[in-house]
Amino acid sequence: MERITVALGDRSYPVYVGSGIIGKIGSLVEERRASILTDEHVATLFGERVQKAIDTSGTQTHMIVVPPGEQSKQFSTLEHVYDELLSFRSDRKTPLVALGGGVIGDLGGFAAGTFLRGIPYIQVPTTLLAQVDSSVGGKTAVNHPLGKNLIGVFYQPRFVLADVETLSSLPEEEYLSGLAEVIKHAVIADEELFSYLETHHNRVMSRDRDALMKMVTTSVRIKSHVVSQDEREADLRRILNFGHTFGHAIERLSGFGTIRHGHAVATGMAAAVRISEKLGEIDSNDVARIITLLEAYRFQTELPGYSNNDFVNAITVSYTHLTLPTKRIV
Amino acid sequence: MERITVALGDRSYPVYVGSGIIGKIGSLVEERRASILTDEHVATLFGERVQKAIDTSGTQTHMIVVPPGEQSKQFSTLEHVYDELLSFRSDRKTPLVALGGGVIGDLGGFAAGTFLRGIPYIQVPTTLLAQVDSSVGGKTAVNHPLGKNLIGVFYQPRFVLADVETLSSLPEEEYLSGLAEVIKHAVIADEELFSYLETHHNRVMSRDRDALMKMVTTSVRIKSHVVSQDEREADLRRILNFGHTFGHAIERLSGFGTIRHGHAVATGMAAAVRISEKLGEIDSNDVARIITLLEAYRFQTELPGYSNNDFVNAITVSYTHLTLPTKRIV
Repeated sequence: MERITVALGDRSYPVYVGSGIIGKIGSLVEERRASILTDEHVATLFGERVQKAIDTSGTQTHMIVVPPGEQSKQFSTLEHVYDELLSFRSDRKTPLVALGGGVIGDLGGFAAGTFLRGIPYIQVPTTLLAQVDSSVGGKTAVNHPLGKNLIGVFYQPRFVLADVETLSSLPEEEYLSGLAEVIKHAVIADEELFSYLETHHNRVMSRDRDALMKMVTTSVRIKSHVVSQDEREADLRRILNFGHTFGHAIERLSGFGTIRHGHAVATGMAAAVRISEKLGEIDSNDVARIITLLEAYRFQTELPGYSNNDFVNAITVSYTHLTLPTKRIV
Repeated sequence: MERITVALGDRSYPVYVGSGIIGKIGSLVEERRASILTDEHVATLFGERVQKAIDTSGTQTHMIVVPPGEQSKQFSTLEHVYDELLSFRSDRKTPLVALGGGVIGDLGGFAAGTFLRGIPYIQVPTTLLAQVDSSVGGKTAVNHPLGKNLIGVFYQPRFVLADVETLSSLPEEEYLSGLAEVIKHAVIADEELFSYLETHHNRVMSRDRDALMKMVTTSVRIKSHVVSQDEREADLRRILNFGHTFGHAIERLSGFGTIRHGHAVATGMAAAVRISEKLGEIDSNDVARIITLLEAYRFQTELPGYSNNDFVNAITVSYTHLTLPTKRIV
C-alpha cells in the first residue's frame, strides 16, 4: 500500500493507494458513528463490504443511498442528504464516507463541507477518474440548472482510500474516461508515465494490477503536488485544466452526459496541443506523440463539427480559463 | 476611523469601524463590477447611498434585494441569490457586498462562500448585533427546516466596514439585542468595558457616538482575538457561546423569532452565571454585578417557565455545547 500526503498545512491528509485494501477502512474510522454516502450501483458492489468493515471495528453506520449519475448533483438530492444526516443525529464529529465515483465525491464533499459548517469527510473513490483526479484536491460541488459545478466549496477530506481492485468491475467506457486524465497528468508533468502508457498498452487495457498502481499513484502524486502549491486554483492549479477548456465545451454542446468527461477532455487535449503548435509553443514531434497516444487508446482527436461560434459561446459560458500546456511543472 | 485586523494568516482581513464612513466603501471596492445583497428594509435606508458610493468609483453594481427577516435564510432565497449572481454574470473576481444585519450577513456569506467555490465577500453590517458579533469570525449559514444555522461554511470576508451612524435608525429592541452581545464580551473578556456599561447607562442608551465607537471597537477586538486563535470553534471560540446554550433553548422553546436573539442570550447569561455560582466557579459578587447590569438594561434575568425537561430537550437538539464562564481569556 502506498501512502501519499497532500501537503496543505493543517489541512494535510493522506491518500492510501493499494490493491484489495477497501476492507482496511474499518481501522481508519475510529468514531463511534459514521455515515456512508453511495449510489445504488456502487452500494450493490461494495456497500455491504465497506459497511461491515466499519461496523466490525465498533462504529455504528448509516447508509445514505442516492440514484447513480450526474442527476444526483442537484439541490434536491443535497437536501435529502442533509435530512439523512439529521435523522442519524450526526454531530460535528460524525464522519461522512463518500463511497463511489466523482458524483458521490462532489456531492458528499459539498454536504460534508456545509453540514454544521463542516464535518469530517472520508473519500473512497471507486472509479479510475475519481482515483486519479476528483478525489484529490478538495473541489466539491453541486450543479445549478444553468451549469455544472457552479455551487461548491473547497473542502479537504481527512483521508482518501483508493483501492485499485474496485476498478475491475468498471465498464470499459468509464475506465477509458479515467485514463484520459492519466494521460493528461503524463503530458503536463511526467514523461516517464507517458512512455509507460505508450509501451504498455496491453497491460493498461487489461487493467493489470501493477499498471493500475503505477497510474493511480503517479497521478495522485502529480495532482497533490500541484494542489499543495495552489489549493484554490489561483494560478498553477490551472495547469490541471489542460484539455478541459474544449473538453467542457464539448460536454456542453453535446448535452452533458452524452459524451463522457474523460473522452471530452481527451479531444480537448488534442485541440489544445494543436493550438499550442500553431502558436509555436510546443514541438511538432511532441504533438504527434500525444495525438498518437490518444488514438492508441481509441480517443477521438478531432473536434466534433460545431461551428467556431458555438465553441466560443460554450467556452465563454463555462467559467473556465483557456489553459495550454507550455512547460512541464513537476 | 479605527482599523482592527482579524489575524488569520492568508485569510486575514481588516474591520473598519467609524462614524459616517459608509460612503468610503467606494474607494475600497476596486473591481469593475460588484453585487450588493440587502433586504427591502435596509435598501430603503442605505441602499442608494452605498450603490452610489460604489458606482461613483467606477464599479458597475447589481442590487439583490430579499425580504427582511429570518425567513430569508432558507434554500429558496439562497437559490434566488445564485440566480441573480448568474444573471449578472458574476465570475470568481466579482465581489458580493452584504449590506444589512445578521440575516443578510449569514445568507450573503454562505452564497459568496459557495458560488463558484468562493467569490470575494465584503460585509457592511448595519445593526449593532451584526457589528459587534456576527460580522466578525466568518460564520455563515442558512437554516434547515429542522433547525437554525444547520447548513453553513466558515468563510472570511475581504473586509468589514462598520459605520456606527447606521445604528441611529435601529428600533430600540433591536439595539438592545445587540447590546446583550456587548455585555457578553465585557463579561468574558473586558472588565473595563463592563465598568463603562455600568457607569455610562445614559450615553449607551442614547446611542452617543463615543459610546457606540467604544462598544463596537472593543467588541470587534475581543471577538477577533478569540477567532484568530480558534477559527473553527475547536476549543477557545466556544467562550463566545456564553449565554447561548440557554439562549438558543429559549429561542427554540418560544418559537424562533418570538424573542430576539440578544434578549434570549441575556437571559441565558443570567442562567449560566447562576449555575456557575452553584458550581462554585464564579464569585457571588460577580454574579450580582452581572445580573444588576443586565437588569439595568431591562433584560429578563429569570428563565421563562418551561420545565427542566423542555430545557434539556431544547439544549440537546441545538447542537451547541454548554459554556460557562470560568475565567477571563483576553
